[in-house]
Formats: sequence, structure tokens, C-alpha cells
Amino acid sequence: MPDVFPLPAGFRAAGITCGVKDPSATRKDIALFVSERPCAAAGVFTTNLVCGAPVKVSRERLPRATARAIVINSGNANACTGEQGLTDAKAMAAAVARELRCPADDVLVASTGVIGRFLPMDRISAGITKAVSALDAKPQALMDAATAMMTTDTVPKLSTREITLNGKPIRVTGVCKGAAMIAPSMATMLCAILTDAALPHGEAQDLIRIAVRDSFNCISVDGHESTSDSVFLLANGAAGVGPESDASLWQLLQTAVNEVAQELAMAIIKDAEGAHHFVQLDVTGCRTRDEAFRIAKAVADSPLVKTAICGADPNWGRIVSAAGYAGVPLQEQDISLAMNGFPLYEAGRPLPFDAATVSMSLRKNREVHIDLKLDHGDQRVRFWTSDLTKEYVELNADYTT
Amino acid sequence: MPDVFPLPAGFRAAGITCGVKDPSATRKDIALFVSERPCAAAGVFTTNLVCGAPVKVSRERLPRATARAIVINSGNANACTGEQGLTDAKAMAAAVARELRCPADDVLVASTGVIGRFLPMDRISAGITKAVSALDAKPQALMDAATAMMTTDTVPKLSTREITLNGKPIRVTGVCKGAAMIAPSMATMLCAILTDAALPHGEAQDLIRIAVRDSFNCISVDGHESTSDSVFLLANGAAGVGPESDASLWQLLQTAVNEVAQELAMAIIKDAEGAHHFVQLDVTGCRTRDEAFRIAKAVADSPLVKTAICGADPNWGRIVSAAGYAGVPLQEQDISLAMNGFPLYEAGRPLPFDAATVSMSLRKNREVHIDLKLDHGDQRVRFWTSDLTKEYVELNADYTT
Repeated sequence: MPDVFPLPAGFRAAGITCGVKDPSATRKDIALFVSERPCAAAGVFTTNLVCGAPVKVSRERLPRATARAIVINSGNANACTGEQGLTDAKAMAAAVARELRCPADDVLVASTGVIGRFLPMDRISAGITKAVSALDAKPQALMDAATAMMTTDTVPKLSTREITLNGKPIRVTGVCKGAAMIAPSMATMLCAILTDAALPHGEAQDLIRIAVRDSFNCISVDGHESTSDSVFLLANGAAGVGPESDASLWQLLQTAVNEVAQELAMAIIKDAEGAHHFVQLDVTGCRTRDEAFRIAKAVADSPLVKTAICGADPNWGRIVSAAGYAGVPLQEQDISLAMNGFPLYEAGRPLPFDAATVSMSLRKNREVHIDLKLDHGDQRVRFWTSDLTKEYVELNADYTT
Repeated sequence: MPDVFPLPAGFRAAGITCGVKDPSATRKDIALFVSERPCAAAGVFTTNLVCGAPVKVSRERLPRATARAIVINSGNANACTGEQGLTDAKAMAAAVARELRCPADDVLVASTGVIGRFLPMDRISAGITKAVSALDAKPQALMDAATAMMTTDTVPKLSTREITLNGKPIRVTGVCKGAAMIAPSMATMLCAILTDAALPHGEAQDLIRIAVRDSFNCISVDGHESTSDSVFLLANGAAGVGPESDASLWQLLQTAVNEVAQELAMAIIKDAEGAHHFVQLDVTGCRTRDEAFRIAKAVADSPLVKTAICGADPNWGRIVSAAGYAGVPLQEQDISLAMNGFPLYEAGRPLPFDAATVSMSLRKNREVHIDLKLDHGDQRVRFWTSDLTKEYVELNADYTT
């Protein structure tokens, strides 16, 4: 991870405390991202039908050509809050718009935290004024914003890439939060990716949709789809260059956005609540990507698979049996499995292996590799998940009270 | 729970130790149920495409008119064991058939335990001989059989009902095992229900399918569908009477079988691995039973809901948000929610409530009632689940090694 995460040209950020997370206001809880000029904006949101008020507000404003800002609070999700919640989400955006002297619709909004409580709008309003005053283009301001998005995260999550388009440097920088209620499609995760490349908002929407598919939609902590997942992309053109009609330059930009999104998605799993292991799951040899995805999700969401990894127990039967209920037509003899490079199951037959050796490998390495291979075709998916530990239970048994 | 669970007339049972569970053979691990005469037999099995060899063997023998016995071992699931596994499962049935001097196809077989290891057939064969010698019609023999089916169960699970058909007494007695890898459809749960009523095997299949739908298919411990779930019904006619063509007598018998199955299903949840709470979830007001079921399953499988209940945390947003991703078309304002009788959410609006009082109610009562009401129609489902605790993680982190 680099030490410094610069903002792309023409962006400023801030992260301040306003007392939503705790009344004594010791933890940052409002993040603000502002573009100096109107920019192309796109977004991808939770597919949960019970979604937060900010999701409803931001979703209908995107994609758009003239966005100016994203305002985010942590500590309260403003979800399941009915009409009052919608009014509050709109008021958050409007408060930023008043300070920036732009139309309210040009401001996007997101919230994360406890579900079912009304936002303390007095504190939020005061906090927004404070955040606007704190806006800065320095990396520290971005770090503050990333910190202000955190809930049960233990570290802020940032990623950046620089590419060159037609001889000019372009920066793509992303920040995100998320540690649980993480399932495809997405999770309680919020992400803002900013770039100074110039591009139309329709294309911005394509870029972010593709990037999310192979990053935030391929992670799972607990299989519980959040009400609040939001990924934003802002492209303000301050670098004075974009991919325009050059397909290879679009690919270059897409790759940079993909890499930032994947690095952030992996950072979420590495910071998963209570996790001891980071699990990379490759499901290969499938007829379609969707079938590979369904198998990966069934394995990644199984508490029995996750507790086995927690205990460094090479209980591969739990992995194979999860594949069996993924809703994908298959037979046992189609499946082969390896963990950390040790072949355990091949074409439907258990292989002899030294359990102590494999267990030691799981115990010694924080990163676990599971390779589940079918013989159906050549489609594949890479998925990231965490193990299920006593600490996860502890963290989640007493969250609101 | 009654103290004595009698076998229906014409059945004998045994539960003995043969050293599958532990080489020192201190724990019972072979259960045998035998009917003195050929009987109608039916079964319902896991829908997991990766299923145990005994499931494949028993499934194709059912329903049938001439079954004689069910043999079950615990400690080894004989799943993911390829051709060798099929040979072994058939050999288990054949060994019983030799002792009973009946065709091998008249014996049903089930296994539960670790996946992916071959059965120690020498011990199993010796155990079967021992079990046949131990067969007895006394309640203690049934208790021994129930004990021999256990894996991580802490108590044997039995249920019985007596009804009267045309003036003659009929008994329905069931035993089951199961404590985790419990999800609809079914779970690592095995169940044998025996009755001395006389009925054709086609009707036996209907009886058991209906009973399973509202019992074993409405429970979830961890959402991981097992390779080995099997529910058997044997009806040997030893009572000399059956419902014949009387619809009200069929209903009486169906109710008795349903009650036995539900009591056993609830016993599984009460004994769920590491659980502190027994959760009864009523989803009502739905357009179809299937929609109610999908919502119930999404809520019951959510680790966030389950950890909240573990912590006596009335974090109702997790319940409502799980309903939102169940795949059922709905809007927040369609939903109302109460926990232990406390209304928390009504028609999309959070209700004021005293968190300490509700938390105390969750802490004090081992049984938790969740009422999730939609305003779509009049279909409903009752579902049972457990909370997710540190003890569950502990139990499952180190199962095979």
C-alpha cells in the first residue's frame, strides 16, 4: 500500500466530527468530496428492496453530467426511516448545495451505521458547515474523509492509480468503508472513486458497473445484503484529457478503475469483522460466469466453511457440499478441490492427504487459497471472503444496545 | 416430553457401539430399526446435488411396499466417497438383509458424520451383527437407537403420538438427530418415523412429504444444506387397521405424523450447536406460502440477525433488511415487526420503544418470538431457528482435525 493517496486534480475532501457516532464527538463521522467544477457522475447501489433513504435520493440523481459533491455520514444508516428519512437525506444534500451554491440535485448522499433511527439533523447541519470549511486538496484531507466513513472498520481504506492518456497523467483514487453486512450484491460498503479524466456520464456509468461486478460484488463477509451499499464515480475532467473514442485508452482507464475497486474490495475483506483469515476463492471450469459466481457465493456464505477455516480445519467436505446446493447443475465427479495448493478431492474422489500438514498451512498463513474446479467449461470467478470467528459473534451480538 | 416412547407394534430397535465414532467404541454409533413384517416405506431426502452414497441407495428404493429395516451409522457420512462409497452403502444394507433373510433392496440405509472418509466396513459389519442380536421391542431399545444416531447432538430426540382409528389404537413414534448443517431443504438430520397403521406405500409417501414440508423444511441452524438428510416413514400395519378410504381418518393420521415431525424438528433447533436462544419466526400476510417461506429463510439464515439475538440486542433493522433481499417483491411500508410482543416497526415506520426493556425480554427468555407481518395477503409460514454464538464457532472450528 502506498503511503500517500493523492486526490485527483480539481477535487477537495474533508472528514470531520459532528457527534452522530458519539455525542462527545470524538470520532470523525462526516465525509465530504467536492469537485471544483461540475463532473460526470455514476453510481451502483444495493439491490435490497429495503434500502436507505440516501440510496433512493442518490440513485435517482445518477448518472448525471453536472454533479459537484458526495456527502456521507457514518453512525446512522438513515434506513427504515420512512418519509422523515427521505426528507433528511434530501436536506443533507441541500445543506451542501447551499454552501457550494449549486443545485441540490448535484449533490449525492450516503449514510452508514445503525438502521431505523432518525438522523440528528441539527448536528448533521452544523457538521456540513464545518466540513465545507475543512475542504482541502491535500492527501491528509482525503485520509480524514476515509476515516469519517468508517463504522466497525479498523483502518481507513484507500487506493490509487496513475495512468497516462495521450501523454497526460490521469489519476484514479478511491476510498471505501465496510467490514460486515457484506454480501454480493455489495454490502454495507460505501465507496467513492474520483478521477480527473474527462468522460461523459453515460460512459462513467459503464465503467463503474463493470468495475463493481468484479470487485465489490465478489466479496462476502456474512451474506447479509445491506440497505445502504453505494459506489460512486466522479470524473471531473480537470486533467484536460479523456479516452475519447480510443478503445485502448478506455481499456486502460477501465483497468485502473477495476484495480482501485478490487484493491478496496480486498481491503474490506482483510478488515472483515473479527476475521483471522483472508480467503481467495477461485471457481473455474464452469459453463458460465454466473454459475461460477453462484458456487463461489454458496461456499463463501457457508458458516460451516467459514468456521472450518477459522479453526485451520481442512474440512473440504463442507466446501464441496456447499457447491452442491448452489443451484448449479453438477455431479460430484465434476468437482476437484485444492486448498493452499494441496489437492484434496479430485473428480469426485477423496485424495489421501496429511491433515496435520494442511492444517498447519491454514494456521500459518493469514491468506487462504481455495481452488474449486469443475469440468464444465472455461468460465471462472474470483471471490474473496473471510472466516467466521468468535470475535465476529462478539462484535455483532451487541451492536445497538 | 413423555418419559417413555414406546415402539409401535411389530417393530424392534437397537443402538450399539462398533467404533466408527471413536476407535475405543465408547459411544453408540449404529442404529437399527426392524419391522417384523414387510411394511410400506417412504422417504424424503436432501436436494443437495452432492449427496451421500446412502441417500442415493435409499432414494431409489423408495417408496416401496416391502421394506423391512433402516440401518444408520453416525460418525461418518459416507459422502463424497465416489464408487467405493456406493459399494459400502449397499454392503451395509446387504449385511442387515442377510441377518433378516430378506432381499437387500428391502433395507434402507443412512449415514451421518464427517464427509469424505471411507467407512470402516469391518467395524460396520461386526456392528450390524451385534445390532441384530440386540434388537428389542422395549422403549430402551428405541432410546438406544436414538442415541446411536447422534453426532454433535447433546440429547436423543424422540416423539410419539397415539390415535384411534375405527376403535383400534395406532401409534406413531419418531426419532431423529441433528444439531447443525441444518437448513431447509432439511439438514444433516436423519429421522425415522414408525407406525403400526396399515397404509399403501404411495399414501405413505404423501404423508411424509406433507409432514416434512411444515417441520424439517422449516428449520435452519446455519443455512448449510447437508449431503445426508433423510426422513423415513415405515408403516407395518401390525395394528390391524388403517385409514383406508376415510378422509377424516387420513387427516387424523396426517396430524399425528405432522406433530411428531414438528416436535422432532423443534427438538433439533432446541439442541442447535452452541445456541442460547430458540427462535420462532412467524411470517404472515403474504401473497403465497412460498413468499412467506423465502422471507423466513432469509431472516433465519442471516448471521447478523442471529448474533443480535445472541446478544439480546433488539436490532430489528437487521430483520427488516433481510426481508428486503429475500427475492420477494415488497416495499418498506408493507412491513410491520414485533419481537416478543413488542411492536418495533409498523408499516415502514420505526416505533419508539424502550431498548432496555426489549433487550431484557430477549435476555430473560430462552424462546424468542419474531412476528414479521406483510400486508400482501393471508399466507403464512412458521419457521424455527437458533442464534449464532461463540460456542457455535468453537464447535465448528475444529470438527475433523
